[in-house]
Amino acid sequence: MHDQPRPFAVVVDTSRSPHARLRPVPLTAVTLADGFWAPRRRVNREITLPSQYRLLEETGRIDNFRRAAGKVDVPFQGRYYNDSDVYKWLEAVAWTLATGADPALAEMAGTVSAEIAGAQRPDGYLNTYFVRERAAERWTNLRDMHELYCAGHLIQAAIAHHRATGDDRLLRVACRLADHICDHFGPLEERERAGTSGHPEIEMALVELARETGEPRYREQALFFLDARGQGLIGGRAYHQDHEPFRELERMAGHAVRAVYLNAGATDLYAETGEADLRHVLDRLWRNMTARQMYVSGSIGSRYEGEAFGRDYELPNERAYAETCAAIGNVMWSWRLLALAGDARYADVLETALYNGVLPGLSLDGESYFYQNPLADDGTHRRQPWFGCACCPPNITRLLASLPGYFYSCSDAGLWVHLYAQGAAHIPLPDGRTVGLTQHTRYPWDGEVVIEIEGKGTFSLWLRIPGWCEEGATLEINGQPFTGLLTPGSYAEVRRAWRPGDVVRLNLPMPVRRVACHPYVTENAGRVALTRGPLLYCVEQADNSGLDPRDIVLPADANFTAEFRPDLLGGVVVLRGQAKVVPPDNAWTHHLYRTALPCSEREQGQPVEATAIPYYAWANREPGPMQVWLRLG
Amino acid sequence: MHDQPRPFAVVVDTSRSPHARLRPVPLTAVTLADGFWAPRRRVNREITLPSQYRLLEETGRIDNFRRAAGKVDVPFQGRYYNDSDVYKWLEAVAWTLATGADPALAEMAGTVSAEIAGAQRPDGYLNTYFVRERAAERWTNLRDMHELYCAGHLIQAAIAHHRATGDDRLLRVACRLADHICDHFGPLEERERAGTSGHPEIEMALVELARETGEPRYREQALFFLDARGQGLIGGRAYHQDHEPFRELERMAGHAVRAVYLNAGATDLYAETGEADLRHVLDRLWRNMTARQMYVSGSIGSRYEGEAFGRDYELPNERAYAETCAAIGNVMWSWRLLALAGDARYADVLETALYNGVLPGLSLDGESYFYQNPLADDGTHRRQPWFGCACCPPNITRLLASLPGYFYSCSDAGLWVHLYAQGAAHIPLPDGRTVGLTQHTRYPWDGEVVIEIEGKGTFSLWLRIPGWCEEGATLEINGQPFTGLLTPGSYAEVRRAWRPGDVVRLNLPMPVRRVACHPYVTENAGRVALTRGPLLYCVEQADNSGLDPRDIVLPADANFTAEFRPDLLGGVVVLRGQAKVVPPDNAWTHHLYRTALPCSEREQGQPVEATAIPYYAWANREPGPMQVWLRLG
Repeated sequence: MHDQPRPFAVVVDTSRSPHARLRPVPLTAVTLADGFWAPRRRVNREITLPSQYRLLEETGRIDNFRRAAGKVDVPFQGRYYNDSDVYKWLEAVAWTLATGADPALAEMAGTVSAEIAGAQRPDGYLNTYFVRERAAERWTNLRDMHELYCAGHLIQAAIAHHRATGDDRLLRVACRLADHICDHFGPLEERERAGTSGHPEIEMALVELARETGEPRYREQALFFLDARGQGLIGGRAYHQDHEPFRELERMAGHAVRAVYLNAGATDLYAETGEADLRHVLDRLWRNMTARQMYVSGSIGSRYEGEAFGRDYELPNERAYAETCAAIGNVMWSWRLLALAGDARYADVLETALYNGVLPGLSLDGESYFYQNPLADDGTHRRQPWFGCACCPPNITRLLASLPGYFYSCSDAGLWVHLYAQGAAHIPLPDGRTVGLTQHTRYPWDGEVVIEIEGKGTFSLWLRIPGWCEEGATLEINGQPFTGLLTPGSYAEVRRAWRPGDVVRLNLPMPVRRVACHPYVTENAGRVALTRGPLLYCVEQADNSGLDPRDIVLPADANFTAEFRPDLLGGVVVLRGQAKVVPPDNAWTHHLYRTALPCSEREQGQPVEATAIPYYAWANREPGPMQVWLRLG
Repeated sequence: MHDQPRPFAVVVDTSRSPHARLRPVPLTAVTLADGFWAPRRRVNREITLPSQYRLLEETGRIDNFRRAAGKVDVPFQGRYYNDSDVYKWLEAVAWTLATGADPALAEMAGTVSAEIAGAQRPDGYLNTYFVRERAAERWTNLRDMHELYCAGHLIQAAIAHHRATGDDRLLRVACRLADHICDHFGPLEERERAGTSGHPEIEMALVELARETGEPRYREQALFFLDARGQGLIGGRAYHQDHEPFRELERMAGHAVRAVYLNAGATDLYAETGEADLRHVLDRLWRNMTARQMYVSGSIGSRYEGEAFGRDYELPNERAYAETCAAIGNVMWSWRLLALAGDARYADVLETALYNGVLPGLSLDGESYFYQNPLADDGTHRRQPWFGCACCPPNITRLLASLPGYFYSCSDAGLWVHLYAQGAAHIPLPDGRTVGLTQHTRYPWDGEVVIEIEGKGTFSLWLRIPGWCEEGATLEINGQPFTGLLTPGSYAEVRRAWRPGDVVRLNLPMPVRRVACHPYVTENAGRVALTRGPLLYCVEQADNSGLDPRDIVLPADANFTAEFRPDLLGGVVVLRGQAKVVPPDNAWTHHLYRTALPCSEREQGQPVEATAIPYYAWANREPGPMQVWLRLG
């Protein structure tokens, strides 16, 4: 494998997957030069990754590898799954190095890679918790101890490192570990080696390793781990995604991150095998998630108990769990489903989750994180610089680092544009040609996107018409109106003989939308959320004269206007409109319940101008209450 | 103490408490002969208590005592706090025997008492978990291991047994354990013996034991345990009521049962000591609970995580935790606060919690139980015959068994009537006279209460005018209108020279009330709950043509009528009224979110007659969805 001529920097390599229509575009082929993502990626590179490295060292996470290698004689530090944080960070560094040299980061990555390699046992086993006094406990508790989970993250990091740098040393470590796993876990009739991981992750990793190395054994092992679920091998709980055989699942249940990671791995398997039953269950689960159990932010997993999916329509706002990693998992899974057939439903959810589910997890300064992402708060929920269970911070980091890889795909017939941002791409088509493409746009603040094509020949250009753009999308090619369909929530296919300098002008109007929620979501009855373009908005006390957002009531005909505020929160479009302030009357001070007043006696409230900011930017100023779903009245 | 001439069957004996205005009336002095409580108490005696005895035997809870005594050689069975279930059951049997002989129950109680006594160690220690191989671990983990909690329940059971039967054998066991505890836990400067219980209960028990025995040492020990909180001795978490010194608490937080049990114990202490700081914090906590954190059912503790109080106004309905034991704790605490000064606020909450918070915890047949009491459900939450953690079943049982003791009090100047039900009482006044009193009423189904007095002399009769009776209460004495105040949420004081045969006629109108909730309780916005008299109502699918209660919408002018249905659910008043059925339109099937429709385009719904039943009776028929808070529109 080391003779592969050039790195192929994609996260999910469906380029030879028989049941995926879309082929990936390497993130190295894409340049983001916009005012939204480019600054965030710069912070990711310059602030977040170095600060996380310091934290990995300070918390003993890297010393755990040194200890496993016999280099230091200290106790194991932190939680038994802490290796995974190191791997995710390393994956993020790999993608970052792929899009720009950075000697300091490269040195950190080299150090960490060497420590990882040094911790591998002679038989390929690698986990820093189960060494020395715990060596005999290896693989004895697959349900709880995250060994296969950590292995999966190592494999993903190694693939990233190889694809980004061409260096195959870590990939060899990963393959030795994967071989050890394949040797150890066999078919179910050999029960002493049966089992599956209490935390999915290995499935995605092994399929990707099969893609990277061409070794089918890894894919078969992933299928084995999937099939082992629901057999009672690891306790039978939904929390561990072991309550039913995978193909019999009817709805999303149990631990949200585990669930979407597993589904992402199963989607990877489907892309290779085309097994119809897998596709059916994946469709069923995705429909349940998006139509019954997903926040308007794209976040999932509403319950604190078990970090879990709840009942259908159980979506509390202030008490939302909505783990950042679960929204990232939603992006991961939706991306894989999108690749199967180019169905824009998945891209809509991916975009929503990216801007509104993942991004709030990171502070604007890049140094603090949300684990939970409530949609309402009293001002006490604040981002933290780190966690004992630090899964979210490096997970955000690796997604931001690999983000350019999510903008485009190609297929046999041409190019797909999923996401919009100022920037350029040089996309190798399957037939060997390369197409250059430049986006000129202020997206997500404005829906006008001008795309210049530098390429020649006949191919299709699929442009995503987002589902949120319900009316008025227009498309011109070299000044001529596009005559095909511009259906919201689909891709418009522009097929023509392109010439260098062709210009495509897409306009996606971004009125302020008042979004209603299904009436069975009890907390959102009689309320609306404000959105504009792909962005969800919220009302934060800081912009609203010290008012409690719970007291702000929108009139039925509220007319909000959008205004770009370059000075605010790194530059955001705010929404402003007339509302009323209706605080609880004094009689409520000492009572929770009272005889209902007739409608005519209800308080009418005082007029007030309300200002909403993008939800991703909340809790970046002084603490104060915040609310996404606003009362109507 | 064994020479005390007659049992004094009261749960909370404030008869000599210097800072309590109300004195208890023994439950033996009160006969309930009504159609509501009397049948329930008969089921409690005939069905529930014997069935719980069988379960205590079957689950090894009584064998644990035999094992501790060396009579059987089996492993400890169940959870480390299971002794407390036996004690609560025994307390319930004691109160039951006090109000009617029952040889079978008496024999069970004798057996259990003997097994308990046999399990006591020579030094007075008594806990069946910490014997044999765990004997050395006694008192080493006060935070988690419930030793003092179990001790408290033994003490309460022993007091009940003594007060109910005059037999002091179990009381002697309890005193030896209490002496052991007092010897072991000293002032804070002796740190090796410092500490307090992770689950309050011992405080109430020790104060009551001081009252029962006249031994002040027990009361001082209770104060020591209270003062030891918030010192970091047991970890400093709100869950264990250790996050702050008790007198500095600002709001109810942490595990709900622990919190109200502690507050009940602190109220007992206040009744003895009159310490102003204690009173202030108790008032503050009660205001926070009732005005910010209590369900309309009187249930408390809204969060599943930690079975805990949440933030102010965090009161989810379907996801309510609302443990039955917490509602019982609310009754216990409110009863003690009521005794301090005869403030009817506490009686209002007590009555609400009794009918609507506690009673739903038990099935109509007396053989299955709710641990959690949601205020909305999809039909899957069903009562269970028992639990691994079986705190609730015997807790309901002991409350029902002692219920007659909650109907009346006396004070220096006369008699207090707190609750209404057909029946009679022969109440010894402090001056030695006995007053006979008979209630004729169909309460809670009807608000007319005719009280015949058999007694002579001048004294006050305080009649509770419930807070729910907002208008139209009337009171006549021998046909003459009462000229004093009839303020809802207070006691009307009728002071006169009474003669035998005097008749008091109280009428408490029971219109159907539409109750609104504080606007900060998000799930209840735009909704009302129906109540009538002391009872909370709910809409269950079984009475509503198979409709999902979520689709039933009440018009703003809904007019509900009450109708007694003797055939239904043991005989209940149902509420019936015109409503609309507004199911989600088809467009919602595949979406959770969509652009809000203008008001004019919203669905108007089809007319339907809606029927509501008392909430306590829900889930006693075929499974189906239920809802307390109904949409208005």
